Amino acid sequence: MTAALDDSFHVFDTTLRDGAQREGINLTVADKLTIARHLDDFGVGFIEGGWPGANPRDTEFFARAATELELRHATLVAFGATRRPGGKAAEDMQVKALLDSQAPVITLVAKSHDRHVELALRTTLEENLEMVRDTVSYLREQGRRVFVDCEHFFDGYKANPEYAKQVVKTAHEAGADVVVLCDTNGGMLPAQVQAVVGLVLADTNARLGIHAQDDTGCAVANTLAAVDAGATHVQCTANGYGERVGNSNLFPVVAALELKYGKKVLPEGALAEMTRISHAIAEVVNLAPSTHQPYVGVSAFAHKAGLHASAIKVDPDLYQHIDPEQVGNTMRMLVSDMAGRASIELKGKELGIDLGDDRELVGRVVARVKERELQGYTYEAADASFELLLRDEINGRPRRYFRVESWRAIVEDRPDGTHANEATVKVWAKGERIVATAEGNGPVNALDRALRVALERIYPQLAELQLVDYKVRILEGRQGTDSTTRVLVTTSDRKGEWNTVGVAENVIAASWQALDDAYAYGLLRAGVDPQE
Amino acid sequence: MTAALDDSFHVFDTTLRDGAQREGINLTVADKLTIARHLDDFGVGFIEGGWPGANPRDTEFFARAATELELRHATLVAFGATRRPGGKAAEDMQVKALLDSQAPVITLVAKSHDRHVELALRTTLEENLEMVRDTVSYLREQGRRVFVDCEHFFDGYKANPEYAKQVVKTAHEAGADVVVLCDTNGGMLPAQVQAVVGLVLADTNARLGIHAQDDTGCAVANTLAAVDAGATHVQCTANGYGERVGNSNLFPVVAALELKYGKKVLPEGALAEMTRISHAIAEVVNLAPSTHQPYVGVSAFAHKAGLHASAIKVDPDLYQHIDPEQVGNTMRMLVSDMAGRASIELKGKELGIDLGDDRELVGRVVARVKERELQGYTYEAADASFELLLRDEINGRPRRYFRVESWRAIVEDRPDGTHANEATVKVWAKGERIVATAEGNGPVNALDRALRVALERIYPQLAELQLVDYKVRILEGRQGTDSTTRVLVTTSDRKGEWNTVGVAENVIAASWQALDDAYAYGLLRAGVDPQE
Repeated sequence: MTAALDDSFHVFDTTLRDGAQREGINLTVADKLTIARHLDDFGVGFIEGGWPGANPRDTEFFARAATELELRHATLVAFGATRRPGGKAAEDMQVKALLDSQAPVITLVAKSHDRHVELALRTTLEENLEMVRDTVSYLREQGRRVFVDCEHFFDGYKANPEYAKQVVKTAHEAGADVVVLCDTNGGMLPAQVQAVVGLVLADTNARLGIHAQDDTGCAVANTLAAVDAGATHVQCTANGYGERVGNSNLFPVVAALELKYGKKVLPEGALAEMTRISHAIAEVVNLAPSTHQPYVGVSAFAHKAGLHASAIKVDPDLYQHIDPEQVGNTMRMLVSDMAGRASIELKGKELGIDLGDDRELVGRVVARVKERELQGYTYEAADASFELLLRDEINGRPRRYFRVESWRAIVEDRPDGTHANEATVKVWAKGERIVATAEGNGPVNALDRALRVALERIYPQLAELQLVDYKVRILEGRQGTDSTTRVLVTTSDRKGEWNTVGVAENVIAASWQALDDAYAYGLLRAGVDPQE
Repeated sequence: MTAALDDSFHVFDTTLRDGAQREGINLTVADKLTIARHLDDFGVGFIEGGWPGANPRDTEFFARAATELELRHATLVAFGATRRPGGKAAEDMQVKALLDSQAPVITLVAKSHDRHVELALRTTLEENLEMVRDTVSYLREQGRRVFVDCEHFFDGYKANPEYAKQVVKTAHEAGADVVVLCDTNGGMLPAQVQAVVGLVLADTNARLGIHAQDDTGCAVANTLAAVDAGATHVQCTANGYGERVGNSNLFPVVAALELKYGKKVLPEGALAEMTRISHAIAEVVNLAPSTHQPYVGVSAFAHKAGLHASAIKVDPDLYQHIDPEQVGNTMRMLVSDMAGRASIELKGKELGIDLGDDRELVGRVVARVKERELQGYTYEAADASFELLLRDEINGRPRRYFRVESWRAIVEDRPDGTHANEATVKVWAKGERIVATAEGNGPVNALDRALRVALERIYPQLAELQLVDYKVRILEGRQGTDSTTRVLVTTSDRKGEWNTVGVAENVIAASWQALDDAYAYGLLRAGVDPQE
């Protein structure tokens, strides 16, 4: 446990509020509490939890957070709007809900674009300033710290810079600690953000923050551009979740600040947890972690080109801008036809198998990989099949847990439009011949089930295995169904996942091969001895 | 058809070379030709096709491109390295392969980081300059235009700015038209890129380009920062595909240049094709299009927040930084609305069917498309299936050439490792019931053959049809073989090609649906009257 950082720079997370606006995300209160714990572990300074009063779920979140959430680093923040036009903050129901949330910090969204004040808020420019002044002062009097989000600030500044700056000044003078300039529709580019933040900073005494959306693909750069210009508060979301394209992604922003700017914005040791926390949050929101996310994606330090691989053997820094371990990620070598000896050796090392001295063995593996890739296999996405191949070469013979005599799959389309899928397998395991039949919702599913029926008595470990993903690619694509089929299967044993590949002239036979490898690897992982 | 743009600014695409380094992408020569056509349609100035000589696939690509590829806007580029240390460019096999490729433009990768020259290239700094000078001059003498990619330029500049600049000057003086500064390990941030490009431009007479990788999440911003500093050549890949995290994404870069900078970098009308082309390329590489990609993602203009939704009702511009139609995308209000009336009308027009006045018919088609898309169908990549659906709605009933009573496919793996694939179909055509059985090299192929055997007597036109591509995607991918399967089939009648789609709980049934549509569409194209 480390102390919270000082207040001079704010890492402000809005995953639970703005991030939840992403298409496909639908968080329960329990999800929100779990994510808040992950963010606190990571060490952000502020966690914006939602808009109490705006929907029952957010109200409940703050109620439960008050008793259930023990934050070590972060301060909880409630989001809301300035009071209604023509009213008083002290009598505004929405403002009351913010106080009721018990959050020590409140972020108020305020309009700063003259056109929005008139069109969307339907009030006067002066009344909008009064709404900011009144609401901020009232919340300050009630003992809360206040940040003000100036919605559409950059467009507003373009349309009417004087008015936009007046909103900033009003918020600051009323007692807001930070005034956050928001690129709400995400249309800005870094040079524009940097210029505007600089001008506003020069013309006001306010402490400034930045809230960027990713509609131009520049949210991270826009956030950093604002910091370059003097902003000391960055609003981000985990994995960049958010409305439309998304928000500024917390992870590359803090990584840049820590590793490129040399600015300490997280507690000691937190950055090395980044990959784990990014994936954990993805699991909670039930989205597959983005494989190509900067710093934390599984592909972020994966090397494919032979040119790169041989250089990396000389010195990993040659093709990596940071040491992956700094962010809790790892380097991976992708075995592909673009790769040579160097990548096979590195790959072996990654799997914990040192091939360093045995040049003849490495040569055999390279030759075998090339031969298989020519047939259509790809090992870059099938680590487990590669490891089986490698171990077979080391052992000098195939290491297998069972032997298949034959199998058969039948798919039948009945006149009523329903389908029957049936598979029969004949296998040998531990000297025993077993014949099993099963049905499934497709031929591969039926084969998978028949194989389990056949083997589960001998290898009860197979009961843990689950097929979690299945991909099919037709190779030499200009020949239609006459061509080669490649199947990639992802299997899980609840502790981890692995990928296997099968290639054959038809999809069922290719699937079968991938399943065969998947089970063999699952048993290998489980520490089962192969004894055919 | 519009004229190619002038040479003052280069949009240079390297999807086929650097993009292919992405983990999970494995392109056939046919895939590469298809992608090149899409990129040319989009109007990029240069298409880097690969490294001829480095692998047989790239060599074959250039051979086929020379005869099969008719580019309207783009110039084809071959990628390669400077000659080996100690040799002569004129005698270098790798350099010869570049010339043999017949590509009018050659991009040469050169080391510009002193440490890489010594560690990875194992030669002297002076010899590296000589390699650049010799190779560029030789290729210029052979009548090729030459661009030089300075690998690791930014790190190199930091370590030894004088040497890095010497490489630029040497390339320029030897006749390279553009010297491209590469952030090879992707570690740069926009402010750094802008500063270095500015300094190099001030100290050399070279025309500069930028090649950015996305490891900090700033590739698009880095590319724009280089343009701000005076670079006039941007290297990008479609959808940002590339090594590790990926490359600078072509689509947000050109959208920013056209819409934010007001710079014309694409042919007239091309930007409005951007969404379609992005998705089409994703289909070819067999990756799901990124839903949250800036400008072109299906979520890029999707609005969820209640606050936003009500503001948008007042004025869509309030929460959108551009009009989505400028990039061929559409605004969506989330209560999920996948296909809008406008896109159906436009699609009808594209197919030569004017739906303009029949609002009720359009409404019916929209409803039908939504219902089917909910089941997993996608019409974006299956024009022929969409046209059949549209015509069915216009006719008020299905227009079919045959009716299937039932079918059955059997796949059997024999003890000797060979497979038997047999299919039986029972169909009705022109009042006749036909039962046919055929074998194939896979179950779909067997079904395809059985269907032809059954129908060819009645519809001899079917003999012309050939299945040329076949793609399978598993939807709801976290459920393995228990999930829904989508099959896309490309069929040719030697005069043209069309795409059809099938969705079912298993791959064989989905393939069958796609085949069924493929034949119906083939007969429609052949002008055959449907008379069941």
